[in-house]
Amino acid sequence: MRAVFLCGGRGQRMSPISEDKFLLDFLGKPLLVHQIETAREAGLIHFVIIGNPQNIDRIKQMMAKIPGMRFDLALQEEPLGIADALKSAGAFLHGQLLLINPNDVFSSSAYSKIMAEAERATACAYILGYQVRRYFPGGYLEVNSENELLHIVEKPNPGDEPSNMVNILIHCHANPENLLRYIEGARTTRDDVYECALDDMVKKGHKIKVIPYDEFWAPIKYPWHIFKVMEYFLDKAEPCIASSARVSESAHIEGKVILGDNVRVLENALIRGPVYIGANSIIGNNALVRDYSHIGSNSVIGYCTEVKHSYIGDGCWFHSNYIGDSIVDDDCSLGAGAVLANFRLDEGNIQMKVGNSLIDTGYDKLGAILGRGCRIGVNASVMPGVRVGPDSFVGPQICLRQDLAANKTALLESLYGVEDNKTRLDESKRKELLDKLKG
Amino acid sequence: MRAVFLCGGRGQRMSPISEDKFLLDFLGKPLLVHQIETAREAGLIHFVIIGNPQNIDRIKQMMAKIPGMRFDLALQEEPLGIADALKSAGAFLHGQLLLINPNDVFSSSAYSKIMAEAERATACAYILGYQVRRYFPGGYLEVNSENELLHIVEKPNPGDEPSNMVNILIHCHANPENLLRYIEGARTTRDDVYECALDDMVKKGHKIKVIPYDEFWAPIKYPWHIFKVMEYFLDKAEPCIASSARVSESAHIEGKVILGDNVRVLENALIRGPVYIGANSIIGNNALVRDYSHIGSNSVIGYCTEVKHSYIGDGCWFHSNYIGDSIVDDDCSLGAGAVLANFRLDEGNIQMKVGNSLIDTGYDKLGAILGRGCRIGVNASVMPGVRVGPDSFVGPQICLRQDLAANKTALLESLYGVEDNKTRLDESKRKELLDKLKG
Amino acid sequence: MRAVFLCGGRGQRMSPISEDKFLLDFLGKPLLVHQIETAREAGLIHFVIIGNPQNIDRIKQMMAKIPGMRFDLALQEEPLGIADALKSAGAFLHGQLLLINPNDVFSSSAYSKIMAEAERATACAYILGYQVRRYFPGGYLEVNSENELLHIVEKPNPGDEPSNMVNILIHCHANPENLLRYIEGARTTRDDVYECALDDMVKKGHKIKVIPYDEFWAPIKYPWHIFKVMEYFLDKAEPCIASSARVSESAHIEGKVILGDNVRVLENALIRGPVYIGANSIIGNNALVRDYSHIGSNSVIGYCTEVKHSYIGDGCWFHSNYIGDSIVDDDCSLGAGAVLANFRLDEGNIQMKVGNSLIDTGYDKLGAILGRGCRIGVNASVMPGVRVGPDSFVGPQICLRQDLAANKTALLESLYGVEDNKTRLDESKRKELLDKLKG
Repeated sequence: MRAVFLCGGRGQRMSPISEDKFLLDFLGKPLLVHQIETAREAGLIHFVIIGNPQNIDRIKQMMAKIPGMRFDLALQEEPLGIADALKSAGAFLHGQLLLINPNDVFSSSAYSKIMAEAERATACAYILGYQVRRYFPGGYLEVNSENELLHIVEKPNPGDEPSNMVNILIHCHANPENLLRYIEGARTTRDDVYECALDDMVKKGHKIKVIPYDEFWAPIKYPWHIFKVMEYFLDKAEPCIASSARVSESAHIEGKVILGDNVRVLENALIRGPVYIGANSIIGNNALVRDYSHIGSNSVIGYCTEVKHSYIGDGCWFHSNYIGDSIVDDDCSLGAGAVLANFRLDEGNIQMKVGNSLIDTGYDKLGAILGRGCRIGVNASVMPGVRVGPDSFVGPQICLRQDLAANKTALLESLYGVEDNKTRLDESKRKELLDKLKG
Repeated sequence: MRAVFLCGGRGQRMSPISEDKFLLDFLGKPLLVHQIETAREAGLIHFVIIGNPQNIDRIKQMMAKIPGMRFDLALQEEPLGIADALKSAGAFLHGQLLLINPNDVFSSSAYSKIMAEAERATACAYILGYQVRRYFPGGYLEVNSENELLHIVEKPNPGDEPSNMVNILIHCHANPENLLRYIEGARTTRDDVYECALDDMVKKGHKIKVIPYDEFWAPIKYPWHIFKVMEYFLDKAEPCIASSARVSESAHIEGKVILGDNVRVLENALIRGPVYIGANSIIGNNALVRDYSHIGSNSVIGYCTEVKHSYIGDGCWFHSNYIGDSIVDDDCSLGAGAVLANFRLDEGNIQMKVGNSLIDTGYDKLGAILGRGCRIGVNASVMPGVRVGPDSFVGPQICLRQDLAANKTALLESLYGVEDNKTRLDESKRKELLDKLKG
Repeated sequence: MRAVFLCGGRGQRMSPISEDKFLLDFLGKPLLVHQIETAREAGLIHFVIIGNPQNIDRIKQMMAKIPGMRFDLALQEEPLGIADALKSAGAFLHGQLLLINPNDVFSSSAYSKIMAEAERATACAYILGYQVRRYFPGGYLEVNSENELLHIVEKPNPGDEPSNMVNILIHCHANPENLLRYIEGARTTRDDVYECALDDMVKKGHKIKVIPYDEFWAPIKYPWHIFKVMEYFLDKAEPCIASSARVSESAHIEGKVILGDNVRVLENALIRGPVYIGANSIIGNNALVRDYSHIGSNSVIGYCTEVKHSYIGDGCWFHSNYIGDSIVDDDCSLGAGAVLANFRLDEGNIQMKVGNSLIDTGYDKLGAILGRGCRIGVNASVMPGVRVGPDSFVGPQICLRQDLAANKTALLESLYGVEDNKTRLDESKRKELLDKLKG
């Protein structure tokens, strides 16, 4: 069976994170590589990756480093949906195949369950149905008593769900040529050619079975979804200190901690796992990294900096900062005293504006989202849930309450009055204070 | 002899501290309980507590936990002064009694001195006279050569004091019924019925003796008076680490330190006594608590926070803060980088506005006074001597120079300009800096 | 041979550092004393110091403490240049002499080279010529093939230099009486009487030889030049912990570190040399001092403060600060959270305004320059390359982007709105968070 990863789309809701979601690094490897490893656990060794002109070369390079498997790469010129992607990869679509959305994270049992059913050849297609315990705003699978698909119902009102199974894009097709014919024949003005084709197949009597699944599932749609995936990989990982890592004798390492090659942990630093630190990064004196934090490579978590439950990219530099529940893309710097705040004074849930809607993230502790290459000035504060676009600078001492677009500089209008200083200080007081301090 | 504690009044000058002064906690016990213990040291075991509708239930509960003593509770409906309080408790006022202001703190010798004199039955009443060494703005006791009271002189001008003895409310009355009669007969339009009654007694030939006292005395009138009382109890206390407290091996405990039940002191924290930490509180990594500090229970002195000579209530959360010479009531939180400043740039004494007058606190190091339930935003600064009312929020990055009333939010109008970012950074520099740092 | 130090001038470009440059302390000694020690290494033991009315008494006191040498002191009433200085010291100018600018730092070989040549009596004067490897905006020495001076060319355009030798003021005169005669005869309207006299000597056939030198040379013209001199002395010094210094067992001392008498290094502090700490200074808990830093005496580098590559005077007090690549004169204080920033967001070189011109310092990491007696308020930020004049106060929370003159106070106009607080907090959340934190 071939596993087909649909990597040609473009995330619309991940701003200011500009990287493709399946190329985000976790534990030093892009998510797509993790996905392939998970698929391999289920026995899959032949992959078709459908990329786009922006990512196809990088994907090719990544795949070249994975031994023992077969990769076919196809190019989807425009991000025009699943059906279009399949047409782009038509040449490779022979025999049984698994269509996979690379931005959703599962355990390998998702694959093995659907593959086991396909083995028994009970239908012409198989759809993974995630069994939700409470309402989830997705596409629900209407099934008969045999779990055979009748219809896909898009975002029903709560209470109107036709089943407890949400449509997840791990779909197995026994006969891709047949699927492609239905895709050719589908008639719709919306971006749902593939779903219409499935519907048409059901109407024409083709049997599509829904395979229930209720283990780990984490889709990445919004930036804060990165946290759940980060936590998943940290929970799965084994603790590991690279032999080339150097940890000061006075530093503390506690819980599950992974230190990459050449990591340095300086005096009095404290790492309280689960925590991952990528190659060549430095954890500075007295720094504290804790509670599911993930630091990329070549980053410096400098003196007196606290990183709590955050996802930090490569090449970042911090320095007497507090970084709470934040996502910081590659090559960002924070000046001394800058704070990425993670908790509202009113302790309410943090909301984020996506497009024109304000979305409740479900988190009452959520910090900032910084795009690649940001600079935050000394003593600046970024409020919970605020996003800073790539290559933007937030000037010193600013309290940033609203999102800042990409490639901008925000500079404070610092208004202060200057007057003559009429104070005459008492020189002896200083001496007195020092004597008191020395005891 | 019965000790009568006048707990029915209401502090006018303690804002934003809303708790009754005698109910403030020291070393895990309300001040009133300390007062009763001090009285017991002098042999007193029968107490009359006159409370008000707001505090009488809590007082009852506290007294119920003190074994081996007798408590009578009386209710004063309105805070109308000493004479009114005594009338409210008339039913309990038999035999010799000691009238005590529970907001002034003494050593037990204050009681034993006055009781020894009363034992000798040399007068019908005995008044404790605090022997001041320099001018104090209080009521002075005009006495004859036998230390018999002639008259109480309210706030004489400096140099006009009739003696060096200030009137302190530890008064012994041999015949309370007689006192109550004089109270009934007193004629005054001001809030000094009790003092007029004493004056009338003297005029009618009753002998009132003044008992000199010059040991510890600390009245609590203004919030900053809490410090002297806190220091007194810390000085009297014995060092004690509860067996359930957990102190990291890399933490430092120095000087006289008291850690309550389940206290946790994390890695590299430093506590330099005299310091008290109440039950269940956490002293975080690298935190520093020093120089007569008193932390309530269930509080978190988080990472990289310094608390110096401060009185902190229960349930407070700090976090990369500096808290100097401050008083923080229960359930307050400070965002990362917030500072309670304690020293003026001009190094002058800190003044506080009480009512319409500006009062010199006598301290050149004095921080903020925060009422219960305050929130201070990240990187905000509260200036020396500034008060924040209960349940008020000070927004991030604010420099709060003036008092903020109760139940308010202060939010900064952060003015910044946004322009296109024309900088193009040199990528190689970052690499270079990291290499340099790694040495 | 007599060494004549020209100490009568006044630095115009060192603001806000008001001390004479040759009186700045390095390793606990004024630069002038170092200069004399260097000269002694070359065998010089007879010195003429020409001071001005402001510094002559202090110089006298300093010289009185140096044993085994002869000092003649002369007074130059007004800072009118080299020729005027020599006239002021005429009474002492007999026999061979070395004219020396005490604000330029050399190794002793500069002296010994020129003295060796003078020994051979090959000319009537000898001038040290610093051999530059690239263009330097100074006075170039035009010489013949025998290195005999033809002419001094002031600041030629790059490429027009007559030699690679820059005129350095270590000049040897075999016959000072002759020099004084030429000085009397020189005719010029500018401040170059001495240089004209040299030119006239050459024209009249007196031979002046240029002695090439290419070892250490660091002139102090602008404040940031202090760094190079500081680094030079730190590199030359031997590590040394005074026997009276007290270093906590949990503190870390790394690399070449010099601790003066009675220095205290508190728990968890880290000093990473080369670093010099003057007598009686305190390095507080968790403080970090690193990378060529030089702290004067009686200073307090308080809790959680980082000092990186900075020159700090005597009697300074820091406190939860970041001080990067900065120069801080005596008796300055920084409030908690104040930052002396050292790196621009655009990572460009730091420029400084001197007079009307903006000068590129050549540093991309350069902090603030604070004059004596400054106070910086809590959470204030001073931008890279900004100068604060002596006795000036920068109010809390200010972002200081422009120089502040001497004797000023800058106070922020903090604009915030106050509204009723409508939040009702969920008390149980606090409890929950604490339980979570306690694990």
